[in-house]
Amino acid sequence: MITFDTEPGRYRHWKLGFDGPVATLILDVAEDGGIKPGYKLKLNSYDLGVDIELHDALNRIRFEHPEVKSVVLTSGKGRMFCAGANIYMLGQSSHAWKVNFCKFTNETRNGIEDSSRGGGLKFIAAVNGACAGGGYEVALACDEIVMIDDRSSTVSLPEVPLLGVLPGTGGLTRLIDKRKVRRDLADVFCTTAEGVRAERAKQWNLVDHAAPPARFASLVRERALALAAGSDRPQNAKGVLLPPLERTLDAEGYRYRWVDVRLDRARRTADITVSGPSEATPSDLPSILSAGARWWPLAMARELDDALLMLRTNETELGTILLKTRGSIAATLDSDAAMLAHCDNWFVRETIAYLRRTLARLDVSARSFFALIDRGSCFAGTLLEMALAADRSFMLALDEGDNEAPRLALSAANLGCLPMVNGLTRLEARFCGERAPVDAIAERAGEHWDAAEAMALGLVTFAPDALDWDDEIRLAVEERASLSPDALTGMEASLRFPGAETMETRIFARLSAWQNWIFNRPNAVGDKGALKLFGTGTKPSFTWERV
Amino acid sequence: MITFDTEPGRYRHWKLGFDGPVATLILDVAEDGGIKPGYKLKLNSYDLGVDIELHDALNRIRFEHPEVKSVVLTSGKGRMFCAGANIYMLGQSSHAWKVNFCKFTNETRNGIEDSSRGGGLKFIAAVNGACAGGGYEVALACDEIVMIDDRSSTVSLPEVPLLGVLPGTGGLTRLIDKRKVRRDLADVFCTTAEGVRAERAKQWNLVDHAAPPARFASLVRERALALAAGSDRPQNAKGVLLPPLERTLDAEGYRYRWVDVRLDRARRTADITVSGPSEATPSDLPSILSAGARWWPLAMARELDDALLMLRTNETELGTILLKTRGSIAATLDSDAAMLAHCDNWFVRETIAYLRRTLARLDVSARSFFALIDRGSCFAGTLLEMALAADRSFMLALDEGDNEAPRLALSAANLGCLPMVNGLTRLEARFCGERAPVDAIAERAGEHWDAAEAMALGLVTFAPDALDWDDEIRLAVEERASLSPDALTGMEASLRFPGAETMETRIFARLSAWQNWIFNRPNAVGDKGALKLFGTGTKPSFTWERV
Repeated sequence: MITFDTEPGRYRHWKLGFDGPVATLILDVAEDGGIKPGYKLKLNSYDLGVDIELHDALNRIRFEHPEVKSVVLTSGKGRMFCAGANIYMLGQSSHAWKVNFCKFTNETRNGIEDSSRGGGLKFIAAVNGACAGGGYEVALACDEIVMIDDRSSTVSLPEVPLLGVLPGTGGLTRLIDKRKVRRDLADVFCTTAEGVRAERAKQWNLVDHAAPPARFASLVRERALALAAGSDRPQNAKGVLLPPLERTLDAEGYRYRWVDVRLDRARRTADITVSGPSEATPSDLPSILSAGARWWPLAMARELDDALLMLRTNETELGTILLKTRGSIAATLDSDAAMLAHCDNWFVRETIAYLRRTLARLDVSARSFFALIDRGSCFAGTLLEMALAADRSFMLALDEGDNEAPRLALSAANLGCLPMVNGLTRLEARFCGERAPVDAIAERAGEHWDAAEAMALGLVTFAPDALDWDDEIRLAVEERASLSPDALTGMEASLRFPGAETMETRIFARLSAWQNWIFNRPNAVGDKGALKLFGTGTKPSFTWERV
Repeated sequence: MITFDTEPGRYRHWKLGFDGPVATLILDVAEDGGIKPGYKLKLNSYDLGVDIELHDALNRIRFEHPEVKSVVLTSGKGRMFCAGANIYMLGQSSHAWKVNFCKFTNETRNGIEDSSRGGGLKFIAAVNGACAGGGYEVALACDEIVMIDDRSSTVSLPEVPLLGVLPGTGGLTRLIDKRKVRRDLADVFCTTAEGVRAERAKQWNLVDHAAPPARFASLVRERALALAAGSDRPQNAKGVLLPPLERTLDAEGYRYRWVDVRLDRARRTADITVSGPSEATPSDLPSILSAGARWWPLAMARELDDALLMLRTNETELGTILLKTRGSIAATLDSDAAMLAHCDNWFVRETIAYLRRTLARLDVSARSFFALIDRGSCFAGTLLEMALAADRSFMLALDEGDNEAPRLALSAANLGCLPMVNGLTRLEARFCGERAPVDAIAERAGEHWDAAEAMALGLVTFAPDALDWDDEIRLAVEERASLSPDALTGMEASLRFPGAETMETRIFARLSAWQNWIFNRPNAVGDKGALKLFGTGTKPSFTWERV
């Protein structure tokens, strides 16, 4: 079983250092530290384990080090920044593993940009040696790229010529969308295995700055301080420590403080039940800060995020996830109100960002999500987002006035601070960008809607009564479980993201979808495919048909 | 060898009728008329041959019948509008055939919408019986859908539950982007094999109108006339006949009047050479109209379109296409000037639309395009678009003042009337949406740029001199030919479309890419896959892993 637990003291591949407003993340991969056996992580190449540490390190910086305003990513190896994802790992991995690994990698990089955009944290890639493939894709995720001009180091995206696959963790998209590299130059760059040295890299806007070895460190420092100067992260705030998650694992599932995951391998489902906050959730800033990682929004987000990652990685056959909540709508709305009242505080802002990234992870998870809005649920505000993220929602219809009737309620959190990666709120996406139904719902914020009202507002899919509830859910789940998992993945990836596209959605959809296709093609993964034969000395043998 | 030649007198599957401003296209598929042997086109299902006729019929309406303002698509079979793409054909087709077939189908449907948007031609689907899969996707491409409410006919997208693939020729995207169907209702609709009857279909906005059998025909007529009333197509104009293309086929390639295609199977390349117009190309409207299908812009567009389709379908292993032009820059610019001066005329407008769709077909062709701008070329205006559409361009650099030095020149055609399907001009796409370089080029319209100037303006990729030219081209072509064709397809599909996305690009990228992936997966096309086993009575056997 893969877990995503780690902490700086246990890192094998990254060194995290602090110097005033600048943090440094040094990639120094332990060759023998692969997360699975069978390959060596040579040349500062990475696998999922390396990415798990990066993901953790970013959260440490965000929460435990509020004084950090810019982050330098660099390498601890001489003349080698990063060779990208480990090819031998990719060559021997299953299709599902490759796709999942790439998705997590993408999410972590999108998270870097999310923090740059909304969290005042800026990133500099200090490319102090050869920078290839996924290595350059990490650099692309940073705000600025400073490259060493030692007359030999290159940046490159050699996936197409060397491996017969794409620079698929953001590379192609960031090249043209973020760095505005001209498409014909991008074409040349991406088909040139040996890459491009500093001078041309700067000319083509592949990097922002280049400096000879003697000036490199000072230029990096200069840029890091310049970017830090524009940050609104606090000067003297006390960090919030992220303790290990309280989680017990057993045969039935994962149990956290606020999140409970029950696995049903026979039905191929998992139930995720999220508990709303207790009545005592703090409303003033000092109490929120003193609660720290125990503050419900953050604690819940960390647990839900972990649960999604654990399910994705370890339970690939559980295709349908049933989302439930338990608790008090009033307390959930109170918690949202406190969170939004203090959203200018750095810690609250980071917590909202954590929630946003967690919900975004749900949106791109290749599982069917059904929200079950039943007795005792509290799909309100932040938790309503889970129902809106679901592919379908079922809400129990009880007689009017029945005290046990489940209700939905809106908070300001539904109207802007937790957008999907397409830049729309889940309400906007639900109504395909049409304003009228969103406005109609927003005008009635403050009401608690029962099933009939929620149906009328378009907030839920079905509203069975108590008599039909069990059968209707059972049938829907059984039917879903009978369908082709691949067709469902493709369908959900299409229907969840109407209209608007952003760089992130283009990475997940256009680029990842093509990469997934290529990851299935004999020219890449067949016995004579390029990815399979890399490093063996045998040249791949392609079928030449263009498709 | 598949050709795309046909004419109404030879149609086997469609009947084209005219009644004042309304044309009717009746789908009445000949079961035994499959374009390949091995399947029967039952239940008004279609294959490439049916789509080739539709493509032809649309062009006949556009050009030969300017009086037509709205088009009714309906079925000639009782109680069966259209069952969609023929499943047995899909089940026995190669991956490349499926993908190519879907692409052409998508292009034809996008063409329907292109004519609605820019050509004053409106479309009504008169759904007079069961309407499934691709049948409903055709209806989605129309401006309005009128459905018969006979208490049994349904609209459906049963691909996911019945076939383990997607409604991939626009279905999922048009559902949410064009018809704004709520994503959870779309989820239910796309997983319900039996579909939805008229009442619910109207409720969910799957159709616009429903009528009982007795009122159906009059409602369709009413809507057709209402849409026609809003059209700006001319009342009494004389149509322009589209004669068969003058084309000779031989072992070396295809020879048309203005387009010449040379195949080189050893190098796996094709040269497409387009001749610019003669000096005598007409400039006044009467001469343009009298030239009709012989008018260079239309004649060239029809030939180039045909050449691209022929290459795609018949020469799947020729991965690199070298684009050349021959002729006079001045004459090409004169022709553009005449075309744009009269762009309000219906025939000129339709010709521009034909050019636009042809260039758009080039943009989504899964081949590498290199433009070779050499002696005697005339990459100006409309023809410059070909160089801008190419993945790379090579321009011969001769000494300053050399009369034979090739030049590039802009016309107004480069600045708006031939946009890519992402809504950007090829110049805008080239510079990733940045205004400054586009404005700098537009300001210097009227100049004829040599290689050095074209390089400085960012219009070409490389400018080798006469000494290096042959070697540099040869090396580039050989190198390209050595790369994985799949990786190139995925890379080009990503790099050609920076930034902006539209419904069309989302269909080609997000939806098609996922469908291509699924078309490769054992759950669809393996021996126990759903697409393979459809109709055999044997249930598919899925691997349940979610990817």
